[in-house]
Amino acid sequence: MAITVVGSVAYDSIETPAGRRDRCLGGAATHFSLAASFFTDVRVIAVVGEDFGPEQEAVFHAHKIDTRGIEHAKGKSFFWEGSYLDNLNEAQTRQTDLNVFASFEPKIPEAYRDSEFLFLANIDPVLQRRVREAMPDVKLVAGDTMNYWIKDHRAALLEVLKGLDMLLINDTEARMLAGDNNLVKAARAVMTMGPSSLVIKHGEYGASIYHRAGANGESSKTFKTPALPLEEVVDPTGAGDSFAGGFFGYLASQPELTPAAYRRAMFYGSVMGSFAVERFGTERIAQLSRKEIDDRFNEFRELTHID
Amino acid sequence: MAITVVGSVAYDSIETPAGRRDRCLGGAATHFSLAASFFTDVRVIAVVGEDFGPEQEAVFHAHKIDTRGIEHAKGKSFFWEGSYLDNLNEAQTRQTDLNVFASFEPKIPEAYRDSEFLFLANIDPVLQRRVREAMPDVKLVAGDTMNYWIKDHRAALLEVLKGLDMLLINDTEARMLAGDNNLVKAARAVMTMGPSSLVIKHGEYGASIYHRAGANGESSKTFKTPALPLEEVVDPTGAGDSFAGGFFGYLASQPELTPAAYRRAMFYGSVMGSFAVERFGTERIAQLSRKEIDDRFNEFRELTHID
Repeated sequence: MAITVVGSVAYDSIETPAGRRDRCLGGAATHFSLAASFFTDVRVIAVVGEDFGPEQEAVFHAHKIDTRGIEHAKGKSFFWEGSYLDNLNEAQTRQTDLNVFASFEPKIPEAYRDSEFLFLANIDPVLQRRVREAMPDVKLVAGDTMNYWIKDHRAALLEVLKGLDMLLINDTEARMLAGDNNLVKAARAVMTMGPSSLVIKHGEYGASIYHRAGANGESSKTFKTPALPLEEVVDPTGAGDSFAGGFFGYLASQPELTPAAYRRAMFYGSVMGSFAVERFGTERIAQLSRKEIDDRFNEFRELTHID
Repeated sequence: MAITVVGSVAYDSIETPAGRRDRCLGGAATHFSLAASFFTDVRVIAVVGEDFGPEQEAVFHAHKIDTRGIEHAKGKSFFWEGSYLDNLNEAQTRQTDLNVFASFEPKIPEAYRDSEFLFLANIDPVLQRRVREAMPDVKLVAGDTMNYWIKDHRAALLEVLKGLDMLLINDTEARMLAGDNNLVKAARAVMTMGPSSLVIKHGEYGASIYHRAGANGESSKTFKTPALPLEEVVDPTGAGDSFAGGFFGYLASQPELTPAAYRRAMFYGSVMGSFAVERFGTERIAQLSRKEIDDRFNEFRELTHID
């Protein structure tokens, strides 16, 4: 089943202990789409500026990602500059230029209308809500957000949460959103806000999924996936979006959303996140093969299964 | 096979968001022995003061733990007072009185000499080394330590490490000992110091085991166990020692140290750690049944296994 994703398609300038890249292709919707494209059809809604050319578009097309929903506007594309020199687990933002995103009004191409899965990647909750409302018939809606929206745009974010089946956020965001330091209690609180499932990403410690009691069959039990022990994290940018792409892409590829499908989706999420950090930006995932993905899936199984 | 453990048997005064306890039975060797006693015979080497009476001794005897190596000395038992009010993941020490431990000279009872497993719980590395040297014929030696010894008694600690097959420490300790923030690299560095296996405990995120290449058969691959998602952590004191007791106790109960035995041992370690934090001090583990342990073991399997 096809996924429509709305979010940023951007240029990133990134500095990490492993080096730096200037203006490489980035953005939440980019990382999400590339990761999800290994599992199912993906359609992107975003806006880019005049600096976004055929070379960038080709990265999407090489993965059969539908870019008809990427609007080309006058001006410059979204730009983000960040550094991980102090802490590989958290970017220090040096600059954010919304540029063409500042006046973005998402339009949904007719060809996207039959998408059964919708992913609202991390952008202004006002935009997330608009897309959600324009696609009322989707089967499953998941979304992401970040500390900035939780802190300063809470009302708009709470409106978005009401329309979500699933939310994917990290530890800090879950604690901040729920106002509770205990992750089990935080998860329960978040699941009263709309989503019946919550994925909490723990960075180098993997991720957990919580289901509201009664939701998603017997999978209402918590499930945990580890992260791959990595000797070198080259660039953490996009790891969370790649996790989401692997997770949601795998779910969309399944005939039925069984508890086992959710568990395998968590593994695929972790697998895609682990590849994402091995190179800068989209470099690793853009060059990935399905065989590499399945080999690493089996590595994850060995890492966690007792027999 | 029997385990001899050397370490502190102590009184703890503990304050956590869930309440406080004054002078409850504690100490690394106490928590370790109780957890390990569900799997195998355990023999303790320690020193206590005149304040340690039949009531405390009865806690050990109820679990068939051999206390003939607990020396009764003039003076008071080791005392520790700590608080978790600010951070459930790290105790703030308010007071440490070594008391009878200050002049402790470990003596190994004849009846302990045929122990095949030895655990050097967290105490002065000088004492750990003395016990290690007095028991040269044991089959497997594991140990624990803490930031204080790593920082201020490094030379003595490095001598102990040379005589260990396995070390069990937490993230911070591993990074500090190796001088490397990346845990995979830190693990490799620690395994050049003596131990061929390293268990790194990640608190609420579970634990990982690393094996030196070629050591312990195919288990030279990393393995990860999660921690149980807990709604309330009443008292984290002794969680790490209980993990070690479950892990090492299970290993000692196995006819052969296969890769699968190590993996199951990691699960049993996590299981015992998860029980330890549910009540103050030894309250939960002292009342535990083997059935509860096995039920929780299965819960851990469901938490992590995809099929």
